[in-house]
Amino acid sequence: MSVLVVGSVALDSVETPFGKAEEVLGGSANYFAASASHQTPVQLVGVVGSDYPVDKLEPLKARNVDFAGLEYAEGESFRWRGRYRHDLNSAETLETRLGVFSHFKPKIPAQFRSAKYVFLANIDPRLQLDVLSQVEKPTLVACDTMNFWIESRRPDLLELLARVDLITLNDSEARQLTEQANLVQAARWILARGPRTVLIKKGEHGAFMFTNESVFFAPAYPLESVFDPTGAGDSFAGGFMGYLARTGDLSEANMRRAVVIGSAMGSFVVEQFSIGRLLEISRADIDARVAAFHRLVTFDQALGA
Amino acid sequence: MSVLVVGSVALDSVETPFGKAEEVLGGSANYFAASASHQTPVQLVGVVGSDYPVDKLEPLKARNVDFAGLEYAEGESFRWRGRYRHDLNSAETLETRLGVFSHFKPKIPAQFRSAKYVFLANIDPRLQLDVLSQVEKPTLVACDTMNFWIESRRPDLLELLARVDLITLNDSEARQLTEQANLVQAARWILARGPRTVLIKKGEHGAFMFTNESVFFAPAYPLESVFDPTGAGDSFAGGFMGYLARTGDLSEANMRRAVVIGSAMGSFVVEQFSIGRLLEISRADIDARVAAFHRLVTFDQALGA
Repeated sequence: MSVLVVGSVALDSVETPFGKAEEVLGGSANYFAASASHQTPVQLVGVVGSDYPVDKLEPLKARNVDFAGLEYAEGESFRWRGRYRHDLNSAETLETRLGVFSHFKPKIPAQFRSAKYVFLANIDPRLQLDVLSQVEKPTLVACDTMNFWIESRRPDLLELLARVDLITLNDSEARQLTEQANLVQAARWILARGPRTVLIKKGEHGAFMFTNESVFFAPAYPLESVFDPTGAGDSFAGGFMGYLARTGDLSEANMRRAVVIGSAMGSFVVEQFSIGRLLEISRADIDARVAAFHRLVTFDQALGA
Repeated sequence: MSVLVVGSVALDSVETPFGKAEEVLGGSANYFAASASHQTPVQLVGVVGSDYPVDKLEPLKARNVDFAGLEYAEGESFRWRGRYRHDLNSAETLETRLGVFSHFKPKIPAQFRSAKYVFLANIDPRLQLDVLSQVEKPTLVACDTMNFWIESRRPDLLELLARVDLITLNDSEARQLTEQANLVQAARWILARGPRTVLIKKGEHGAFMFTNESVFFAPAYPLESVFDPTGAGDSFAGGFMGYLARTGDLSEANMRRAVVIGSAMGSFVVEQFSIGRLLEISRADIDARVAAFHRLVTFDQALGA
């Protein structure tokens, strides 16, 4: 079963304490697709300008990412320039040029409309709602969002919440959206407004999956060097959604595995600039990292004497 | 097997967004003892001034905490006054009055010198070294420390490192001590200087246990309300050391269980001011929370289709 993603296809220029990259593949849809394509075919909807180096998308096409939903518009592609200092947990945005992305109106190709697994990456909630009106009967709809939309599109975001099955957001966004400092209370607040599942990402501090019945936590993998944190959240979402689409199993046990697959993908992507590492790794690498996550958290509950 | 703790016995005045407490039991040794005493008898070494409300220690005495090593000195007891704002992860110290604690020279009573499990709570590394010269042949010596000693007593602290089996410190202290931003590299740095085990505490983000062979991570329990974070680290250490002393088993599997017991104790103590909650809970409560930790992190590695 393939997974549909609607999001940004961008060019990133990034500086970290370990190096610089200029005009490399970026954007939520690219990261998501590179990650999810390890699990299942991906259908991508986005927009690029006339200057986009489309040949650089070939490796993704070769991995079962279908770009039939990529619109080519007159004008400049979406560009983001950012810097990470010693604290790799927060990016400093130096420049954002939306270009053709500012007029993006997602058009879901006919052959994508029956998608069963849909990820609405971080775009205007009005567009996310519009996408929902174009898909037929998805099994699982997940969305991401960010501080900008929480501030400027709150009513639309609340409408969206009522229509999705799952939301991913980071801890500060969860606090901002819900005005609850405590993450358990923040998750409750969101669960009461629609989604059956809330994934709260804490960057290097791991991720929580909350439902009305349970809480699951997966740490971030303790890497010896984090090279470039860009795209970790979307790679997480790609691994998570891709695994669910591949297995078609929405049981609690399988969703927990999906969170760990997502965490594994997030831990790979930060090892290089852009989607470089995601294009290198194999299923065996992913399995090995999942096994390492298992060793990292496993303890035997049976108490001693 | 009992556990020996050397540390502060203080009076705390704390303000949190949820209330205020004046002159309540505080200090590393009190928190450690209240926590460890759920597992095993505790021998405590510390000092109080002539104004200390010693009757308030009775509940600890009733729980097998032996105060034979508590010195009574002329002068004021150690007092700490602090405040937590909305971000409960960091305390703002309003006032520290060391009182008799500034002249503290730990004297280990003869009947405590054969202690097998020793916790050197956060005091001057010179005093921690001095304690080591007074104990006979401990099985496991653990120490804690803080930014102040890392800055002002670095040579002594390095000497101490070479003589302890285990160190607990928080993430910012680990970075400060090692000058490594990355926690895995920080742990490696410390492991190369003596301890076989490094416990890095990340407050609400959980705790890592590093050895040369493995890494274990336990999250902090996602509580719906954290009332007062004071003492979480020492309660963690108390649960950890107490459990090891009780079971006498230093295998990797048992040390992992000890970390989870420590995390459970840390999650209880923050539910009330001072050691209040630790005096209320039973072994059944601890077991139930350990089980909840297990549910929180458990996933089945076996992948689907």
